[in-house]
Amino acid sequence: MKVYEKIYDYFVSDMRSGQLKAGDRMPSLRKCQETLSVSRTSAETAYMQLAADGYIYSVEKVGFYVTDLAGRYSDSGKEKSADEKNKLQTREKIIYNLETIGTDKEVSILDLWRRYMKSALRQEERLLSYAGNQGEYDLRSEIAAYVRKNRNIICSPEDIVIGAGFQSLLSILIALIPGERSISFPTRSFTGCAETFSMAGFDVAYRNKASHVIYVTPSCMTKWGDVMTMKRRKELIEHARTNGHLIIEDDYQNEFVFSSRPTPSLYAMNGGEDTAFLGSFSRVLLPSVRISYLILPKGVRAEYEKIKKYYNQTASKAEQIALTQFLRDGHLQRHIRKMRRLYVNKRAQTVAAIKKSFPLDTQIKLGNSGMEIGLILNGKNLMKKLENSRVAVTPVEADEKSVSVLISCSAIPGKDIKAAIEMLACDLYPDKRS
Amino acid sequence: MKVYEKIYDYFVSDMRSGQLKAGDRMPSLRKCQETLSVSRTSAETAYMQLAADGYIYSVEKVGFYVTDLAGRYSDSGKEKSADEKNKLQTREKIIYNLETIGTDKEVSILDLWRRYMKSALRQEERLLSYAGNQGEYDLRSEIAAYVRKNRNIICSPEDIVIGAGFQSLLSILIALIPGERSISFPTRSFTGCAETFSMAGFDVAYRNKASHVIYVTPSCMTKWGDVMTMKRRKELIEHARTNGHLIIEDDYQNEFVFSSRPTPSLYAMNGGEDTAFLGSFSRVLLPSVRISYLILPKGVRAEYEKIKKYYNQTASKAEQIALTQFLRDGHLQRHIRKMRRLYVNKRAQTVAAIKKSFPLDTQIKLGNSGMEIGLILNGKNLMKKLENSRVAVTPVEADEKSVSVLISCSAIPGKDIKAAIEMLACDLYPDKRS
Repeated sequence: MKVYEKIYDYFVSDMRSGQLKAGDRMPSLRKCQETLSVSRTSAETAYMQLAADGYIYSVEKVGFYVTDLAGRYSDSGKEKSADEKNKLQTREKIIYNLETIGTDKEVSILDLWRRYMKSALRQEERLLSYAGNQGEYDLRSEIAAYVRKNRNIICSPEDIVIGAGFQSLLSILIALIPGERSISFPTRSFTGCAETFSMAGFDVAYRNKASHVIYVTPSCMTKWGDVMTMKRRKELIEHARTNGHLIIEDDYQNEFVFSSRPTPSLYAMNGGEDTAFLGSFSRVLLPSVRISYLILPKGVRAEYEKIKKYYNQTASKAEQIALTQFLRDGHLQRHIRKMRRLYVNKRAQTVAAIKKSFPLDTQIKLGNSGMEIGLILNGKNLMKKLENSRVAVTPVEADEKSVSVLISCSAIPGKDIKAAIEMLACDLYPDKRS
Repeated sequence: MKVYEKIYDYFVSDMRSGQLKAGDRMPSLRKCQETLSVSRTSAETAYMQLAADGYIYSVEKVGFYVTDLAGRYSDSGKEKSADEKNKLQTREKIIYNLETIGTDKEVSILDLWRRYMKSALRQEERLLSYAGNQGEYDLRSEIAAYVRKNRNIICSPEDIVIGAGFQSLLSILIALIPGERSISFPTRSFTGCAETFSMAGFDVAYRNKASHVIYVTPSCMTKWGDVMTMKRRKELIEHARTNGHLIIEDDYQNEFVFSSRPTPSLYAMNGGEDTAFLGSFSRVLLPSVRISYLILPKGVRAEYEKIKKYYNQTASKAEQIALTQFLRDGHLQRHIRKMRRLYVNKRAQTVAAIKKSFPLDTQIKLGNSGMEIGLILNGKNLMKKLENSRVAVTPVEADEKSVSVLISCSAIPGKDIKAAIEMLACDLYPDKRS
């Protein structure tokens, strides 16, 4: 544990015990240095982290004050609900987290990305002007080259629209298809995108072939990453063409299709007709970088030229400039290859550990893509045991006799996989533990 | 002119004359260095700038190619329309630009901002995770402190939602006010925001007091920056309260209210009831930084907690982290004070120059805020003369005898103001030139 973390914990514990209350002034940095015998930097880092996590806030030229948040977590806090208390207790108990789909630090490219950001921040002329609505032209050129190489898509920078996340891009697409008023999603988990369509007056359905717009994720058809077969792809394209439907191809997880041959994109198979393509760099680059892109269906490009002035760019210009050069230098391709190798390895390790630690009647669901593995577990009171487990996983469905869960091995360090799986098995099947 | 700019112009001129055509390969960087006797860095910078402006694109491990764009501007290009030709000719002729509301480089804080971005990029843990939907908590704390100090607004970080631009924030607000279905804007110039409401099924009107939602910019009521009077503010609040209407207060240009006392915010006057507040940092910080915020009306906060999971964050996390510390250290306040001093000075210079160079019957419209000055010019064929002028300004309306234009002195260097105004007068009134 680093010094600043100790300082952090020291104050959080004071807040929880009620010694520091909402509205109290924090000791000055100098006081903190002296009392705890720590360096200025450690004290500062701890305070910044406390502020970042919402425990304290600063008042210019005065100092730091304790927020409400701290009070809510405190044992004597009045605002604390039973729910929050449970959450907190659970959070403190978790030793391994197999819930998140975060990035493995082993393949972090943050150092490299920092260099490109620094270089982007030197482009004075570009940073002193507003971003173009469609996104930076040179980034769109690089994306056109990237999808030509990886997704067989032939398109020009003019066909590509940049945005911070899918929701703002879908708002633009919706404005381009005014006749269509119903959409079908593969599952109920596309909450954000479904909300965007619903707010625009669309009827939202699930797996309904009659909908005007059909949203699909061909590289991730099930929670554990089954990939859409060629046969289904051809059928879908044929169906959409016959009925005049629009396909939205969300390319989620395509970079992590492991066990099958590279999958062709629907957009390419369909020659760009009646298909919109959505891609994102958040997952393959850094979760905090919000740059996504929409490749417009061929038919709406002229219409887009007319309405683009109404839609301001949302993605950061500096990050767009950095990503352009990052792509140009081939770093993303290299990084994806590296991640694929690591993740293939971790998936195999996870499956081996499950086979060793779990009862024989446990079903393992392993798709062709992604870092999530499905497990169907048999036994009683498993939901209760999952809630109390020291290992966090994502429950999918449950009945009296069995529970399905998803296990993600993307964020956990490879060296911890075996121990985490063993601990989970031990928490769920304490009696069977040999 | 810097060396890289010469190289840039050299190639653009080759493209325009047709010596380099769309699809042609550019000389390699080494070749360019040798032929033109320039440094590697200059050649690279020129190529990057050509790529950024859409003239060339790179193909990994092969080189750079000329795009369509270059062809469209070429004298022999087939795609070039009369419109584009005119635009290009005009663009080449412009000596002074009084059209843009860009930033004056004299008060650029890019160097300082770079330092904060570098520091933000060191926060590894935060950059390796996804951004919270509502925006970073510590940034919201700083914004709460900022509006408390500058706008008399008492609110908590929980009342504030961060987003990249107003459109994504308004989408969220719309979802929170499902009953309301008509909105009124002050003028037709709010195209982006009007589009967002229109797509959500709202009737869009202008200056219509009967609309359910009333969008106002109290610090910029006219094109030349008139500020809403206290009397009007009270009337508006009373009207909204009586009829159950919602006010959206767009705080545009409040930082640049010069000649009157600081204007109270409607949000504060109304105690946060039935009022949503929109603020942005793009204008006061850097145009390329897309961070805006919405302060929720008091009544919808609980509802927001329910729907916030559907709205992913759009603003860059690194920029949010940098801005937090930037605000905390008081730099924005200092920067705004500096800009205000500079702009007050430039406005006075511009007005003095206009009085000296223009005919006596010219009307000067000068509001209390902003860097735009309105001019009502009398004379014949003025629109034609404006189009051919070497000074770019923004025409607002015209009849046979007169033309109104807007002149912005924000981006032009102070030392050029006098010459620019004289040149404009000379182009519009060539006969009166003494």
